Amino acid sequence: MDEVLRGRRSIRHYAGREVPDALVREILDLARHAPSSMDAQPCCFVVIRSPAALERLATIKDAYCPVDKREAYPAGFLSRAPVVVAVCVERGRAHGRERENGILVAAHLLLAAHARGLGGAYLTAYQPHDPGLEREIRLLLRLPRDIDPVALVPLGFPAEMPAPKELRPLAELVHDEIFGESVQE
Amino acid sequence: MDEVLRGRRSIRHYAGREVPDALVREILDLARHAPSSMDAQPCCFVVIRSPAALERLATIKDAYCPVDKREAYPAGFLSRAPVVVAVCVERGRAHGRERENGILVAAHLLLAAHARGLGGAYLTAYQPHDPGLEREIRLLLRLPRDIDPVALVPLGFPAEMPAPKELRPLAELVHDEIFGESVQE
Repeated sequence: MDEVLRGRRSIRHYAGREVPDALVREILDLARHAPSSMDAQPCCFVVIRSPAALERLATIKDAYCPVDKREAYPAGFLSRAPVVVAVCVERGRAHGRERENGILVAAHLLLAAHARGLGGAYLTAYQPHDPGLEREIRLLLRLPRDIDPVALVPLGFPAEMPAPKELRPLAELVHDEIFGESVQE
Repeated sequence: MDEVLRGRRSIRHYAGREVPDALVREILDLARHAPSSMDAQPCCFVVIRSPAALERLATIKDAYCPVDKREAYPAGFLSRAPVVVAVCVERGRAHGRERENGILVAAHLLLAAHARGLGGAYLTAYQPHDPGLEREIRLLLRLPRDIDPVALVPLGFPAEMPAPKELRPLAELVHDEIFGESVQE
């Protein structure tokens, strides 16, 4: 388990190898075990494989990416993913915590995928201050009014092996009782 | 890994057994591997063990819990947890995605804890439409202005074994290309 948590990386280049439906379903089956508000399990998934839809997702994500980030994080790779899972949340079941519920499920989904040799990445399906991105995704996936898109998770067998991640030192991140108090080593 | 994802449950009753600092640090060390926006790693942790602070956290959470949920989900158990980790996010590193970054780390933290035999639960540290909860937690933990609390994760050795979770059927949750289209079995 430690190796799964440590070894997961964001993968944006995928091999041509097919990702079978059965494998996607195994991963979604695991992802739905994530914690949910009052155990109401509000998440659902749209599995997207159609080239036209993937192309459209890439275009939409690029259009709503802040200009200063578009070069470093272009969304074109979405159109080359074998499959993208849109993690959505049913508002009536979410107890006002649509995003929390969706993000927790997406975290589990990425780990389940990595444990099966697939690579993926976490992309947001909304912007806090601009309803445009969410609206475009809603239209594309024909989401009913009470279903909110939260995350887009492309999945594929990795065609890249990113360099080991440079992590910030743990001592910099951990505080004892109150912020600013270092934990004794 | 599958068993960790399937077996994790929300645990709110804890054994008297101590949770060593070294174990908490191992878990936080794993949690910081979660994906982050543009790899900026904005999360940090406040580790809370002082009985007075835990009691105060329980009081605050109860005070901001909607009245209709307080009976089913009382927060008093927080005061009986050996340790609570407040997952916080540094706004200047979060690229406008404070909550996403914090929630992804909290998901990893809960799985890392479960893999080590600890139980925990996900509690929010803010409310979308009322700044009061966040403000109280900020005061208690003396968070600087640019550090946002996102989640509270109590940890302890479980003193309960919840019944197996009843999950919604996967077929109800998975849609093919567009919402409402069932995936062929």
